[in-house]
Amino acid sequence: MNPPPLLSKVCLAVDCMGGDHGPSVTLPACQAFLAAHPEAELMLVGRAAALAPAASWPRCTIVPATEVVEMDDSIEVALRRKKDSSMRVAIGQVKPDANGAAAAQACVSAGNTGALMAVSRYLLKTLEGIDRPAIATVMPNERDGFTTVLDLGANVDCTAEHLLEFAVMGSALVAAVEGKEDPTVGLLNIGEEAIKGSETIKRAAELLRAAAESGHLNFHGNVEGNDIFKGTTDIVVCDGFVGNVALKTAEGLASMLSNFIRQEFTRNVYAKLAALVALPVLKHFKARVDHRRYNGAALLGLRGLVFKSHGSADAYAFEQALNRAYDAARHGLLERVHDRILETLSAMPAVVNEEEPAAHATEPTA
Amino acid sequence: MNPPPLLSKVCLAVDCMGGDHGPSVTLPACQAFLAAHPEAELMLVGRAAALAPAASWPRCTIVPATEVVEMDDSIEVALRRKKDSSMRVAIGQVKPDANGAAAAQACVSAGNTGALMAVSRYLLKTLEGIDRPAIATVMPNERDGFTTVLDLGANVDCTAEHLLEFAVMGSALVAAVEGKEDPTVGLLNIGEEAIKGSETIKRAAELLRAAAESGHLNFHGNVEGNDIFKGTTDIVVCDGFVGNVALKTAEGLASMLSNFIRQEFTRNVYAKLAALVALPVLKHFKARVDHRRYNGAALLGLRGLVFKSHGSADAYAFEQALNRAYDAARHGLLERVHDRILETLSAMPAVVNEEEPAAHATEPTA
Repeated sequence: MNPPPLLSKVCLAVDCMGGDHGPSVTLPACQAFLAAHPEAELMLVGRAAALAPAASWPRCTIVPATEVVEMDDSIEVALRRKKDSSMRVAIGQVKPDANGAAAAQACVSAGNTGALMAVSRYLLKTLEGIDRPAIATVMPNERDGFTTVLDLGANVDCTAEHLLEFAVMGSALVAAVEGKEDPTVGLLNIGEEAIKGSETIKRAAELLRAAAESGHLNFHGNVEGNDIFKGTTDIVVCDGFVGNVALKTAEGLASMLSNFIRQEFTRNVYAKLAALVALPVLKHFKARVDHRRYNGAALLGLRGLVFKSHGSADAYAFEQALNRAYDAARHGLLERVHDRILETLSAMPAVVNEEEPAAHATEPTA
Repeated sequence: MNPPPLLSKVCLAVDCMGGDHGPSVTLPACQAFLAAHPEAELMLVGRAAALAPAASWPRCTIVPATEVVEMDDSIEVALRRKKDSSMRVAIGQVKPDANGAAAAQACVSAGNTGALMAVSRYLLKTLEGIDRPAIATVMPNERDGFTTVLDLGANVDCTAEHLLEFAVMGSALVAAVEGKEDPTVGLLNIGEEAIKGSETIKRAAELLRAAAESGHLNFHGNVEGNDIFKGTTDIVVCDGFVGNVALKTAEGLASMLSNFIRQEFTRNVYAKLAALVALPVLKHFKARVDHRRYNGAALLGLRGLVFKSHGSADAYAFEQALNRAYDAARHGLLERVHDRILETLSAMPAVVNEEEPAAHATEPTA
């Protein structure tokens, strides 16, 4: 596969009201992003008054939206009640019109994940060949690179076919954003021989092997939880429940260790002096594992690009989510996912891909 | 529930050949354990020649076994071929005779988990009321305590009833070893409202709530992966696939961060000097999160106590596994699990507890 040429003009639609902090974080992030990307354009979506400071910014359009999806709003509320929410209006900007053109090439929101996925699914619909959209993020690994992990919580019960879809979409993402055209894929499993995986995992391994044999996937085999951080494969595929637990467990451990380090270096006068001496080293370490650098999860499998920032992101972290969305859009991620899925599925006669009733994609009855 | 009196005389059966290192690790650990516990007795199981150095040790019996279950032996081999393995002979010591008395009160092995669980299940059978034995370990938390997590890989596909069993067994373990008679239990779930758990998890939450209402469980509610390290609850319950992924992910992240810290403190001359100054602080930090301190997972739900050491344990870590097994046996863990399960199930008329075909517990056909 030859990489498609870079899109020359990319506009991002930004839900400026989402997340824990809203415009106080999203606006400075947008300003920094515009300064760093002289060819990029932004559509800032939200309450007009809140976005007034950006009225004079270059390459910037303000799109008013009167409502805000709160972090604890249910999907029900986001879908049926708040039809003029900044989240919904922002997602709407990436929906193609009758001619296939969209106002924006990707949307970024720090709003709540469940609502973002549900509204995206409802407004954009899934790509041909995709039964379940998935959420993909990157985690740092020992090779000083990133491991892309999906799904992270969009799908609790997955079939083997869904895991194959995730593998293909993840490959398209890594190819687009990291420029690796043939990234390796690992299937997350457990190591004990007695109990090696459920029937679903075993069947998923068969499908992934079949896709590899037809030349449409670089399947490494089973991997375990620690392989995410070893960087054994470029991509780790799992169902959303397992992926979410792995992500949250890693976040919890990182937070505990960081608190312990802080406590140890403030325990007494000697420790505080040692902290002063070690400061440059500790800073370098901290920067290396700074989770803000990895902010920006991709919602894959929709007919439009949507990126999810962590709800608690600060301006630096939100800017990274903008960067990721921008890179993905410029590198034609949408078309890549579309093409890879169709190529892979057409090469696999055995794959049954029945559409399940997708509760969150149905028309709201108002 | 009043805690039962401490057992005055406890003997541990030790599989001295198991693990990556065998007697070179297990024997020094046993020696240190005997020195620290002047009332404890050990049965050292393994090849007579390898255990000869221990022949003159006090409170120590050598039990010969001619075979060794290797770390990569299949369950098949461990169960059917190696009938005189040190693992099997050691487990056999905790099996009660016709009068209900056993030669040892707990068994410790660093052998491979799948084989250990299968042989234990075959020789000891499950306790009344237990459908699936589980593996429980502890992880450190921010409260400078431990969170007990189960299952860690014995059961890939779990029903809601299995998760209830795990919750009750985990409660018995924490009550016995940590002296908390009414420990809190969290059900591992994911946070997104859209997608809050599978049907199994939802039903498990109902069962746990019912057990709590009848006064037989201290159910906190759902928890997420990060709550393991926050110490939100004393116990976190999940199926074996999820638990294994969480554990391995945490191990992988800890290993990566520890490598990064080492790299940063050796990056250049200044960093090396800083490392010297910071050494006492870093050592304290390292000791605080030393995973060897938490070594020793409990196989729960069997008619005998079996503890599993990490295969790569060094002598210090293996000694901790001996300590955990000794504490559990002295505090009557076996009877506690038995009593708690029967009390809880008898108070829950709605619980159906159908025996599933248990592949690894069947009689080997030789």
